[in-house]
Amino acid sequence: MGPRIGEVSARGRLAEPAEGISEAELALAARNHGLPLEALRYDVTPPGLHYVLTHYDIPLTDEADWQLVIDGAVRSPLTFGVPELRAFAAETHRVTMECAGNGRARLTPRPISQPWLVEAVGTADWTGVPLRVLLREAGLTPEAVDIVFTGADHGIERGIEQDYQRSLPAALALGDDPPILVAYEMNGHPLPPQHGSPIRLIVPGWYGMASVKWLHTITAITLPFNGFQQDVAYRLRQNATDRGTPVTRIAPRSLLQPPGFPDFMSRDRVVPPGPVRIEGRAWTGNPPLAQVEFSPDGGLTWSAAELAAPDPNHPWSWRRWHATWTATPGTHTLCSRATDHTGASQPIEQAWNRGGFANNATQQVIVHCVEADE
Amino acid sequence: MGPRIGEVSARGRLAEPAEGISEAELALAARNHGLPLEALRYDVTPPGLHYVLTHYDIPLTDEADWQLVIDGAVRSPLTFGVPELRAFAAETHRVTMECAGNGRARLTPRPISQPWLVEAVGTADWTGVPLRVLLREAGLTPEAVDIVFTGADHGIERGIEQDYQRSLPAALALGDDPPILVAYEMNGHPLPPQHGSPIRLIVPGWYGMASVKWLHTITAITLPFNGFQQDVAYRLRQNATDRGTPVTRIAPRSLLQPPGFPDFMSRDRVVPPGPVRIEGRAWTGNPPLAQVEFSPDGGLTWSAAELAAPDPNHPWSWRRWHATWTATPGTHTLCSRATDHTGASQPIEQAWNRGGFANNATQQVIVHCVEADE
Repeated sequence: MGPRIGEVSARGRLAEPAEGISEAELALAARNHGLPLEALRYDVTPPGLHYVLTHYDIPLTDEADWQLVIDGAVRSPLTFGVPELRAFAAETHRVTMECAGNGRARLTPRPISQPWLVEAVGTADWTGVPLRVLLREAGLTPEAVDIVFTGADHGIERGIEQDYQRSLPAALALGDDPPILVAYEMNGHPLPPQHGSPIRLIVPGWYGMASVKWLHTITAITLPFNGFQQDVAYRLRQNATDRGTPVTRIAPRSLLQPPGFPDFMSRDRVVPPGPVRIEGRAWTGNPPLAQVEFSPDGGLTWSAAELAAPDPNHPWSWRRWHATWTATPGTHTLCSRATDHTGASQPIEQAWNRGGFANNATQQVIVHCVEADE
Repeated sequence: MGPRIGEVSARGRLAEPAEGISEAELALAARNHGLPLEALRYDVTPPGLHYVLTHYDIPLTDEADWQLVIDGAVRSPLTFGVPELRAFAAETHRVTMECAGNGRARLTPRPISQPWLVEAVGTADWTGVPLRVLLREAGLTPEAVDIVFTGADHGIERGIEQDYQRSLPAALALGDDPPILVAYEMNGHPLPPQHGSPIRLIVPGWYGMASVKWLHTITAITLPFNGFQQDVAYRLRQNATDRGTPVTRIAPRSLLQPPGFPDFMSRDRVVPPGPVRIEGRAWTGNPPLAQVEFSPDGGLTWSAAELAAPDPNHPWSWRRWHATWTATPGTHTLCSRATDHTGASQPIEQAWNRGGFANNATQQVIVHCVEADE
């Protein structure tokens, strides 16, 4: 007798007090990867440095045979090959994407899942057809409530066998805030396998779970979507029975590019005494940002950083900021804090939720300012 | 008073019994990344899926200004820009590269460092100038013993501030076994930042530590090189005072592409009952391989797998293998084992060394064969 499919997954759980990262969490950390923080230097993240999170396996796909089906509550069900999508007028958007679980491994107790610290982010130029254009071509019926996006990645999660599926409200999918793309290029090239080759959804301003990769079906439905990734996984809950609220737009966040040079093992930084230019990036799913602040003492005192003006061509991209810090001998903790136009900001201590989602606690960069050896 | 530079690093250590992966190890796992095992399906690993290990930060480099200096015990010190390197006749080699620390996190006790499980590998087509051509151009003097390669990545390791440096014996550097390249292209494109842009060394058949990235200086010296990465770090030792032996060529290894589909959290696999084609790759730094075997029961019983014939154009590349397994309901542990032409093979239990180097213990893939739900 073999196990039943529902018995294969372990139950969702929180780490025990003082429980180190487990081998299962490490296996996810070795597969998936974050942005090395020095790559904050690039306006557009070079291939291979953008964060990647794959729920199951990267599927084997073939652009030549790929078909995107639009069906359900539409007047004209449609099917497109990639060349037919490329025949539409293309749009390109520069989008900062962040994983909804970024920061999870810094929580106490730690939800057992992909153990990100602060690095699950990246910015790319995505090119494709606006989703609204395809939906208008198919003609949503007035009864359409949610639009469901299905990818080719297949697996089990907490006992539920599934293709990865997420939905968006019909009104959002038809609108332009954010401008949603059915994308076939990343940084001017066909999508790499791990970023959804040959086509994926891009939902600017939302955490990455909305941007379904390896997209093959778009279905308009007449009742709210209750799939696993919508109704169970990506929700902000306080306990296992709390129904919670959905994870949607990216909370304001900033990261600073660690100055000086690193110690291999601790990733602590070393700088000489004197003025140090501190640079970083800041972003939000609810633009524009209002300000970025810098703290040289772990969040005790803050001063305004110089935030680059918003680029009207790239409202969904991170923005560069800088500050000057005068390093004095000793060990320091550097932090930055972004605030958006509504006043939403980054906490120093993260409010906890059971899935470890939508964290935006301030980063802490340990810097040793060393005296020259005589 | 600040710390002195020698005080910044923690001492090298082994994990305590039952100590989980620490936050420092996790930070390395989130920066660096392995090959997602489904990417074993590609003969040449697509960009972004090849393993990456960076000791310090990825440096900011500019191909237009880059200069490679060849100096030391040579008759004519030389300097080359990238266009001048491209003017030499180019060679391309398909090389399977593996990190010397692959498998470290499976050791007990676990050496505290980059915590790889089994995935620190990848195969790429590297194009550049043969090293021997450049060395002959400069003319090594008869006193030259070692050739030292210096990269632009700078940091501290166990209290030693350094640019990353490794050496090769002069005779090896001048020879053609293996055919060493000063490479400027990966898979037909300029090197990405994380793979050594604009130029790097490629030493086929050796663990990755030999293939210095962001290469700017090649120095012939007349005494054996005793730099940190040569004399301290990459050595096989049994204890902290053991001088040990150097890590050099890659030990024979095979990996199998996990069949079926995964559980998100455990990465365990699910298959239905019946025949399952098992595919994988095998490689060695001492080619050719002699055989690959497959075990469906955790290494209790083995049978020969079908190993693809060696490709005379790609002696330094991994080779594909396959086996057929008939899955029966229950939970199974699949393994594979490569053996090279000298009889060197993969152990089921890894011989331990203090740095966690040159592991090649057999991979274990847990597969649940489930009955269909009624």
